[in-house]
Amino acid sequence: MQLSDIGELSLLETIRKRFAYKSRGIIVGIGDDAAVIKPRGKKLLITTDMMVERVHFDLSFTTPYQLGFKLVSVNVSDIYAMGGIPHYLLLDIAMNKTTEESFVNSFFDGIQDAIKLYGISLIGGDISSSKNDMVAAASLIGYAEIPVKRSGAKPGDKIYVTGSLGDSACGLELLKRIKQPFHIKRTMQDAGCRIQDKKDRESCIMNRASKQHLKSKLSKIGLTWNTIAPLLKRHLMPEARNPKNFVRHATAMLDLSDGLFIDLSRLCNESKVGARIYMEHIPLSSQAKKASSALGLDLFKLATSGGEDYELLFTAPPHPPIPPLLRGGVGGVKITCIGDITKKGMVAVDKYGKESALKAEGYQHYGIQR
Amino acid sequence: MQLSDIGELSLLETIRKRFAYKSRGIIVGIGDDAAVIKPRGKKLLITTDMMVERVHFDLSFTTPYQLGFKLVSVNVSDIYAMGGIPHYLLLDIAMNKTTEESFVNSFFDGIQDAIKLYGISLIGGDISSSKNDMVAAASLIGYAEIPVKRSGAKPGDKIYVTGSLGDSACGLELLKRIKQPFHIKRTMQDAGCRIQDKKDRESCIMNRASKQHLKSKLSKIGLTWNTIAPLLKRHLMPEARNPKNFVRHATAMLDLSDGLFIDLSRLCNESKVGARIYMEHIPLSSQAKKASSALGLDLFKLATSGGEDYELLFTAPPHPPIPPLLRGGVGGVKITCIGDITKKGMVAVDKYGKESALKAEGYQHYGIQR
Repeated sequence: MQLSDIGELSLLETIRKRFAYKSRGIIVGIGDDAAVIKPRGKKLLITTDMMVERVHFDLSFTTPYQLGFKLVSVNVSDIYAMGGIPHYLLLDIAMNKTTEESFVNSFFDGIQDAIKLYGISLIGGDISSSKNDMVAAASLIGYAEIPVKRSGAKPGDKIYVTGSLGDSACGLELLKRIKQPFHIKRTMQDAGCRIQDKKDRESCIMNRASKQHLKSKLSKIGLTWNTIAPLLKRHLMPEARNPKNFVRHATAMLDLSDGLFIDLSRLCNESKVGARIYMEHIPLSSQAKKASSALGLDLFKLATSGGEDYELLFTAPPHPPIPPLLRGGVGGVKITCIGDITKKGMVAVDKYGKESALKAEGYQHYGIQR
Repeated sequence: MQLSDIGELSLLETIRKRFAYKSRGIIVGIGDDAAVIKPRGKKLLITTDMMVERVHFDLSFTTPYQLGFKLVSVNVSDIYAMGGIPHYLLLDIAMNKTTEESFVNSFFDGIQDAIKLYGISLIGGDISSSKNDMVAAASLIGYAEIPVKRSGAKPGDKIYVTGSLGDSACGLELLKRIKQPFHIKRTMQDAGCRIQDKKDRESCIMNRASKQHLKSKLSKIGLTWNTIAPLLKRHLMPEARNPKNFVRHATAMLDLSDGLFIDLSRLCNESKVGARIYMEHIPLSSQAKKASSALGLDLFKLATSGGEDYELLFTAPPHPPIPPLLRGGVGGVKITCIGDITKKGMVAVDKYGKESALKAEGYQHYGIQR
């Protein structure tokens, strides 16, 4: 059954039933001209992020479930990057009328799983048809006691990142080569950890035929499923990093969406400071090392300008020291110091101590690279 | 110059400069991971509406200025329909990288004029490329002391609409036939009033050649510019109706976006009531009467299920009477009582007093009409 058989009113009714719950200050939810919430006494955060077919995602290797999950995650990542707690979500979705009902259901499964994970509520949105590509946008509202802006970094602060960089970009390169979707869901263990659960591993692969096909593809390039799965997962359905156990120390913060160097340059510009990055300290996962080596990719480039890491980049004074592990996920996510905030200029230091100017490269829409 | 020559960072910088102002509780505006506002003690309203190329607009007869203006207006209309005051706007825009800079500038001119008109601030957004059609979505945040929901109508209440219905649908039919853009801007006098200002009239027409061409087209079907201009304007750049001088009486309200009958059925469903509509009382403008007659269109159908009226439909007890004029616009906009709320069922009464079941027809995405 396609959307043209279901119709907008019926689809809206389904969504309303699926997401109908009253909680935490929702006075009017889905179904009126606007949602109504009772704001608490804190500061209100609002962010929005959109995902466009053939720009942000490729349906030949992204499942609708993953798309829904990622749409929520990238918005949550922005609220976390302000040191906030996400609460209320609004969706704008444009889909072709030939879209299958099963696609729409899976998309909302992904939205729902993400909503549960982050503890947020869907309170409204707009559904439209599109003549061509699918477009999905979300707006997310949250609260923060003390928002962490991009502009608070001071010379002498240390620069930290969560997790490892380049995993997502590496995952994307793998997907472009393998060209098939993987039905990875959230139950799978967190990226960065070994996939030990056989059931999880099985559920990632569409069927036996494609599993066999994949195995032969991977063995040709000397890779295993255990190596590539965390990379695929980090690209297809990243989980946003909640900074709760270091946020009180952070002087400036943002989430890495376009690449370390371009995003760091944004933080430095807003804070009117410079940065010195120790290239050897940039955290790279063993899986990304193996995969990039097998595929002949420059992992260093992927880690510094590949984009879509959705890790947090933040600055903090040298004292007190930041706990090295971010709670959440299986075994947590490590926190790595990669450099220092300086008065001006952006400098990269290589393993021999040689300094060179750091170029703010990363993803930009409309095809300009600086 | 195209977007591919400008680049995302440079475009973002331009937008930030153009819309940079701090006011009314904005702690962090455009340029961080999320905007930060200090909520006031009232109830917070949030709405979102998207516009998709070739679904909501046709760039062969919609100017980018009008598109920007309308995107803001349709969202403001939702906040007004809750009895609220709009405050903070976020935008999501996906445009092809071949989009001309002049197009982008005009689009933001339209956004800016609308923002000034409604007294709101742009506080954030997301800009993306698209492979094909343009998509623009806006999220709008406002406040209301006492939100007016769709669910408050009671049997015995009177049903009112602002302005006249079918003007926008009539304007769209005209545009489809004339197939040319009109550079109507907000300075033009309000729809429903005669266009008396020669300068306004002139500015509506692209150039002399097309003016002459249009004149001959119109004279062939027996229409004049003064007749069609308010209809075109109501479709291309509707101004949202602020209910401030009757909102205290309204028991239920929504804005007419998909057509009187389908939207009335929504209000009745939410309020669990019925309605009796006196067809003779549905307000029709003299311009719509002339134009529909000249084009052989069923104005009654356009007025009841044409959609995009962006007039307010509301219910109120019979006493005290509602002031017949909505302040705002040149000479104001009239308010018309078109029927009564009943216990159940939806009935249309014709000029002879004959009753028939009212069908909830109107625009639905994915092509289903009920």
